[in-house]
Amino acid sequence: MNKQPIGIFDSGLGGLTILKWVNQLLPKENLIYFGDTVNVPYGAKSPKAVTKFSLDIAKFLEAQQVKLIIVACNTASALALRELKKQIRVPVIGVIEPGAKKAATATKNKKVAIIATEATVKSNSYPKHIAKLDPKIKTVQKPCPLFVPLIEEGWVHKKAGELIIGEYLKNIANSQADTVILGCTHYPVIKKQIAASLGRNVKLVDSSEIIADTVKNLLEERKLINSSGKGKITIYASDAPERFKKLARHILGSELKKVHLKKIN
Amino acid sequence: MNKQPIGIFDSGLGGLTILKWVNQLLPKENLIYFGDTVNVPYGAKSPKAVTKFSLDIAKFLEAQQVKLIIVACNTASALALRELKKQIRVPVIGVIEPGAKKAATATKNKKVAIIATEATVKSNSYPKHIAKLDPKIKTVQKPCPLFVPLIEEGWVHKKAGELIIGEYLKNIANSQADTVILGCTHYPVIKKQIAASLGRNVKLVDSSEIIADTVKNLLEERKLINSSGKGKITIYASDAPERFKKLARHILGSELKKVHLKKIN
Repeated sequence: MNKQPIGIFDSGLGGLTILKWVNQLLPKENLIYFGDTVNVPYGAKSPKAVTKFSLDIAKFLEAQQVKLIIVACNTASALALRELKKQIRVPVIGVIEPGAKKAATATKNKKVAIIATEATVKSNSYPKHIAKLDPKIKTVQKPCPLFVPLIEEGWVHKKAGELIIGEYLKNIANSQADTVILGCTHYPVIKKQIAASLGRNVKLVDSSEIIADTVKNLLEERKLINSSGKGKITIYASDAPERFKKLARHILGSELKKVHLKKIN
Repeated sequence: MNKQPIGIFDSGLGGLTILKWVNQLLPKENLIYFGDTVNVPYGAKSPKAVTKFSLDIAKFLEAQQVKLIIVACNTASALALRELKKQIRVPVIGVIEPGAKKAATATKNKKVAIIATEATVKSNSYPKHIAKLDPKIKTVQKPCPLFVPLIEEGWVHKKAGELIIGEYLKNIANSQADTVILGCTHYPVIKKQIAASLGRNVKLVDSSEIIADTVKNLLEERKLINSSGKGKITIYASDAPERFKKLARHILGSELKKVHLKKIN
């Protein structure tokens, strides 16, 4: 039994989808979430910049005595995970590998599509991981830079939103992939709309669902699970905590009590 | 005569619209442009964060011996200009005041609308400046956070783009303002589409056009103008210079020769 918190970080709000799943599956765990709102978004920035942001946050979380760190951001997982694992003592879990594994298992026709940020697509992380698991699987990728601002603006249900989703997914639909990875933690918010656009035969892989299982397994394996009390959730943002609180409702569906301002670089 | 360069900065690419106008009006001036691509976008960040970013850049430009600094970003002008003027020795020109002045002169029915980023709208800078010039003028503001990603994605001519523009401008059209300030340096790129959506009776005020005149007047007044040779343009970006170079084409209509990577914080 281990009461140390689990650290979770993202460039902004998106990782709250993962916080939500972890809290549902492991309600006794204390969670510390860090949203890097002063540097958001990561999706169009360089590997060097994203690695620096990620290391600074992971070191802050380590100083908070976390027992495990979840990189709840596809871009940071794609660009910074190797360096994080090198420099951070506690286990670090990214979202790419579990997502790739789930997709490789799910596909029947050996065709997997990935929708993600520009930086995640450019890193080629999903195709590389999938190829390691099954070299016969064909992959196709599509960066969707308008999805995040669309979600944060809350325009998902408007006609413009529908057109944007349709436009990005055109090639994905044509690729005949039977499995599509939602390669950005914001995208589960528009899962229904993506499913409607791609049709019912396509399976959507949402890393945020899988991560919670991965975390649970790892904690059990290492006897780090917390089995008593009710978990406490602490939220930090590196800028504009009130704005974070307001937008978090779009993702969590409920209000956060407090978001602490924390500058780390 | 003064061969020292003029410094221009923006959170990213948008300020290139101003660089273009300054270079057209004052082709002999040496220009140094700084795009803060590691911190982009400013539009949803706090006044404190935007002021820190702006001061760091202005100090870098001062160290390059500039004779004048143009804050080619509405958000930075709205949030950081006062502090910049306090801490920087050379003259600093923002985009808000000249834009407000032009709009106050242009309006016939005393109704001015402002479209801008979330942070610029929240700062209330345009309404405040306009009220100082003519307290009878009524103002209405609308933040348009999807415009910048739409422009950077190059989706301006798509149906989704048209719908987004129409949606944001609905209230502006209803307000019956005869003058609309394009309160973000990206927006001139979609000037035609905005004009088409609002109708021919509305006057659009584009700060990037006015700034060049303001700069020329100031340089002449202070005898700082450079009247010989051909101006050299030097471009810095704080992250991902190759991406900056690629996207700059959407704004400049031509290719930049070189973008230097420069980290300043």
